[in-house]
Amino acid sequence: MSTDPTDPLVVFTPSGKRGRFAVGTPVLTAARQLGVDLDSVCGGRGICSKCQITPSYGEFPKHGVTVAADALSDWNAVEERYDQKRGLKPGRRLGCQATVQGDIVIDVPPESQVHKQVVRKAASARVIQMDPATRLYFVEVDEPDMHEPTGDLERLKRALSEQWQIDDIRADLTLLSKLQPALRKGKFQVTVALHKSHRDAVATVIEIWPGLHESGLYGLAIDLGSTTVAAHLTDLETGEVKASSGIMNPQIRFGEDLMSRVSYAMMNPGGDREMTAAVRDAINTLSVEIAAEAGIDPTLIIELVFVCNPVMHHLLLGIDPVELGQAPFALATSDSISMLARELDLPAVNTRARTYILPCIAGHVGADCAAVALSEEPGKSEDLALIIDVGTNAEILLGDRHSVLACSSPTGPAFEGAQISSGQRAAPGAIEAIRIDPVTKEPRFRVIGCDLWSDEDGFAEATATTGITGICGSGIIEAVAEMRMAGLLDDSGLIGSAEQTGTARSVPEGRTHSYLIIDASAEGGPRITVTQGDIRAIQLAKSALYAGARLLMDSRNVDKVDRVVLAGAFGAHISPLHAMVLGMIPDVPLDKVTSAGNAAGTGARIALCNIAARAEIERVVRQITKVETAIEPKFQEHFVAANAIPHKTDPFPELARIAPLPQVSFNTGGGDAEGGGRRRRRRG
Amino acid sequence: MSTDPTDPLVVFTPSGKRGRFAVGTPVLTAARQLGVDLDSVCGGRGICSKCQITPSYGEFPKHGVTVAADALSDWNAVEERYDQKRGLKPGRRLGCQATVQGDIVIDVPPESQVHKQVVRKAASARVIQMDPATRLYFVEVDEPDMHEPTGDLERLKRALSEQWQIDDIRADLTLLSKLQPALRKGKFQVTVALHKSHRDAVATVIEIWPGLHESGLYGLAIDLGSTTVAAHLTDLETGEVKASSGIMNPQIRFGEDLMSRVSYAMMNPGGDREMTAAVRDAINTLSVEIAAEAGIDPTLIIELVFVCNPVMHHLLLGIDPVELGQAPFALATSDSISMLARELDLPAVNTRARTYILPCIAGHVGADCAAVALSEEPGKSEDLALIIDVGTNAEILLGDRHSVLACSSPTGPAFEGAQISSGQRAAPGAIEAIRIDPVTKEPRFRVIGCDLWSDEDGFAEATATTGITGICGSGIIEAVAEMRMAGLLDDSGLIGSAEQTGTARSVPEGRTHSYLIIDASAEGGPRITVTQGDIRAIQLAKSALYAGARLLMDSRNVDKVDRVVLAGAFGAHISPLHAMVLGMIPDVPLDKVTSAGNAAGTGARIALCNIAARAEIERVVRQITKVETAIEPKFQEHFVAANAIPHKTDPFPELARIAPLPQVSFNTGGGDAEGGGRRRRRRG
Repeated sequence: MSTDPTDPLVVFTPSGKRGRFAVGTPVLTAARQLGVDLDSVCGGRGICSKCQITPSYGEFPKHGVTVAADALSDWNAVEERYDQKRGLKPGRRLGCQATVQGDIVIDVPPESQVHKQVVRKAASARVIQMDPATRLYFVEVDEPDMHEPTGDLERLKRALSEQWQIDDIRADLTLLSKLQPALRKGKFQVTVALHKSHRDAVATVIEIWPGLHESGLYGLAIDLGSTTVAAHLTDLETGEVKASSGIMNPQIRFGEDLMSRVSYAMMNPGGDREMTAAVRDAINTLSVEIAAEAGIDPTLIIELVFVCNPVMHHLLLGIDPVELGQAPFALATSDSISMLARELDLPAVNTRARTYILPCIAGHVGADCAAVALSEEPGKSEDLALIIDVGTNAEILLGDRHSVLACSSPTGPAFEGAQISSGQRAAPGAIEAIRIDPVTKEPRFRVIGCDLWSDEDGFAEATATTGITGICGSGIIEAVAEMRMAGLLDDSGLIGSAEQTGTARSVPEGRTHSYLIIDASAEGGPRITVTQGDIRAIQLAKSALYAGARLLMDSRNVDKVDRVVLAGAFGAHISPLHAMVLGMIPDVPLDKVTSAGNAAGTGARIALCNIAARAEIERVVRQITKVETAIEPKFQEHFVAANAIPHKTDPFPELARIAPLPQVSFNTGGGDAEGGGRRRRRRG
Repeated sequence: MSTDPTDPLVVFTPSGKRGRFAVGTPVLTAARQLGVDLDSVCGGRGICSKCQITPSYGEFPKHGVTVAADALSDWNAVEERYDQKRGLKPGRRLGCQATVQGDIVIDVPPESQVHKQVVRKAASARVIQMDPATRLYFVEVDEPDMHEPTGDLERLKRALSEQWQIDDIRADLTLLSKLQPALRKGKFQVTVALHKSHRDAVATVIEIWPGLHESGLYGLAIDLGSTTVAAHLTDLETGEVKASSGIMNPQIRFGEDLMSRVSYAMMNPGGDREMTAAVRDAINTLSVEIAAEAGIDPTLIIELVFVCNPVMHHLLLGIDPVELGQAPFALATSDSISMLARELDLPAVNTRARTYILPCIAGHVGADCAAVALSEEPGKSEDLALIIDVGTNAEILLGDRHSVLACSSPTGPAFEGAQISSGQRAAPGAIEAIRIDPVTKEPRFRVIGCDLWSDEDGFAEATATTGITGICGSGIIEAVAEMRMAGLLDDSGLIGSAEQTGTARSVPEGRTHSYLIIDASAEGGPRITVTQGDIRAIQLAKSALYAGARLLMDSRNVDKVDRVVLAGAFGAHISPLHAMVLGMIPDVPLDKVTSAGNAAGTGARIALCNIAARAEIERVVRQITKVETAIEPKFQEHFVAANAIPHKTDPFPELARIAPLPQVSFNTGGGDAEGGGRRRRRRG
């Protein structure tokens, strides 16, 4: 950068950075000296095309610059060749070839920025800034010389130091066998993938290609859940999600929920190793499938990020989870983990692929919760936010910029349709929404795979293929809430009889009653009811969720929160009104209940695409206050009080304003209320 | 440490360190504050017994101290218990238990010093100071606490930081599965093996045991040669060599010498991988055998150090050595390598065992030569030393404290008895020494396994079991030199006829003659001769050796050296006089030719036992000037001139003084001199 006032002025947009440079300075050089975010893999050799810029000509009063038509050098042979071969967009130049000839305004388009921003499709406006741990670097390596007999690796390191100012470089042993052929095939020009650690200054060469590597680099953000394993295959240069795919967690055959898997490990010597092998195998299969879906070579998958709960975390790592099944729920390790994917037996991805696992918060609050915290950033919230990731185990965060608290609560699988008489996973044919007319007590519903309600014309035809197969999680929440709103259910959770409710849809079932949604059994069709047992299962699940949230509110000394965020794939499908009627979540204005989509998965993507986010979440996790629900006596108290619908003691003023609930009571002194009591005791 | 002049004075021997300490200060505490080298694994808990000291009582005018009988506290319960259980040597106390009560002189016996010195058995006076990369640390870890839910690993790290002031600790993934059971079995008291890197401040937990681990830690120093693989199993606490063992390098089946193995890799796709697998398998077998010999569990082998030539280096690491077979002889990597033993497929040793490979000096000058430099320290020599490691490939170092030069020279396997008509490896029955009477021309000899000369009484009986089976390397050197001294051989290397030499032991063989050492073939015994071909093979080998040394001398601009060191197991058996008669080594006073034993192996042991030596040799190697014999035109010139015995042009004044050689010439214009010429050309 020059201080000579007669040198041309170069202004970059959108950054606004400006400086004077001698005539003949390449635009890339000017950008680097000013710290303008302009990409380059080949280091200015005119072969990678990452440094494309758009010069602007004419008057720019804002910048105080007039740009003449000849402010940049003419196209040179390199640009001509590139344009013929690949085609430059109109108005574009290669920043490493075009040189400054006069005052100039230069725009750096988003795709030429190193730290590109990736706007998420989800509701939240949060963007991911690209700064992955692994990047490509093109280098020209000195040829070997007998008179100065350093190794090829040492000359590669020197080239990276001289051409890219990167020092303290290591290399995997397995890379060494590829090094010499790649250098010679590329005539000592190679592209390397360099992985930088976020913990220290060490950079590791993890892949090498002869010449310029143009097939990209990919990463997998993996949300390893108890039930499903979901992965996003992400382009590490652009941040674009090339494919998303999921697979059932094969550990389900060892136990539906976490504690049953821990029990399996405790009861069966080697059981933990069986489960470890099963889940690693599934992840490997998923890697192959998702790469095929995106049409890329799976060995181009060079980074993996995992988020998961503590039991999944230990089983993934090959650690017996037995300690997580008993107080004091000690994790083998709570810090983040950086390692090789091959240490997890994942042969499909690159053999030198790096794996990062987010830190765990506590024995019951895992890396998945840390990922939610990374995505939703409660610690940066101005108002007090309650973030609930609904699942078999719910992760709950409460916080604002003053402090953040976290706990987990064992909701069980009822919200996922398990333990519900007509329950099923969210799949075509499942009832996902339901409304009950408060006067006629007649239901209408919608099934997954069809936009029509059941009372609309064409519904039968539209659902002929899928059928009506059961009720999924969001459907059962709506069903129970609608029953309560329609006066079919009292606040203790008891379903009234036909007599008490005035509808023949209340059908006796043993000593209790069920609500009949549809009965096409005469025609060989489905018969779907909500039973008293279903109500009890949902009561247990929602009480656990509410009690967890309430415990965090106690710790913060508040009895209300400003807003509620429902996270998790399932959270996106929950109706805020129905959740509040049920008393799953504390009372807040309805417009203060939002969905964050798969926040854990988003957190994984952020950690995959932005290395600084790893250091950030490690710092944040250390500052989160953990609340252990399992040993807190007040949890049980909150749990019992939350059994009522919406709640025994807590007022729900916002709910009362928009949806006053009928005051009904169906308890005639019979045995069922006792039944509920027994269930509660058994859980404790 | 106190400055109060009334506090007791504590004087440590042999260090002489002294200071005043408050009454009641434990001796270990005083030692640590003074920086006295007193060991402790348990950190002063009275259980490891490493801190044993010997108090001295009475008058010590030298130190100005009178030590009263009650200068130390009485034996306490911990010492009583230890003495009953294990027995303390008379006069010994536990430094962590005995407290200072009055002025005292305390001797730290060698075995209680952390940096013990290991005196080598070999001729050289050099000692190895113990400071291994991996050490044991006993720690008490906080039990898990639900209210502060850090992982077990994080609490272990905190304990190491608080109790041993060691930070930046990592752990292998595979250790995590052992961590929780070990902590609980040891009631949160564990011993860990901590490996410190010599390149950065990172320490890695590589093993863990419940309670105090008392079975020691071991390392293997491995000299991986083209022909044999030799290992020393070393106690990493004491430096003691518990067992030494060797095994044939199974790669011999792919080629006797290095270049034939490189050719094998070039000619056979996958051939490099075959050779890699073979040598790794042999090293693994050797590890099992040597552990069994020493009676230790092989998983207690926690460190390995390798020294080897570049081709062995690459084949060990799984790198195709093809580039080493052709100019410019580029190494894939020349720097030292630190990695896991399991990356080399060595399942017998600890799965987290660390491996260190010394740096290579150049494409033909390997880590074995670096190890010789580490052991013999030419760069610290006051006089100009020529160090020759004789083998199939000879490594040659020339230097003093001003500069060090290195090269390698392809001597071929003749010195190891190969390519010699009656040649064999050094084994019982092989002729290892021979004398020829200059008057009668009659030989007498000694064979390995018998101390008698062949003309002494009882020789026949003593060698009846082994027989007389051939000539080994040192034997053939002596035979050729003795033939020259006895006038049976002229300076061109031609064996004279019976007529020319006046002995019937000169027997015709085709157009040339052989010297008959023994002919018992009539009785079914051996017939051993030195043929003209044998002479030529030795001439080629010794010329290569001398030419390499001469090339280094040229680079230093000298025509003589001050001393010669013969290194290598074979070097120890070479007679300096005979080597000089042969012209293998430059002319120096005979008492200036010494043997360094297996200097490469010693270098490996030093790097195993002393972590600072690793940084040291890495620094030294960068300063060594490499001379490439293969491309230096003068090498060929030196090689041709060195073909004569001892030399065509170089004077050997020292040799002439002690052993004037007869001036004979047997060239009658026949074809054999030409034959020698042809051989020389073929080699070039």
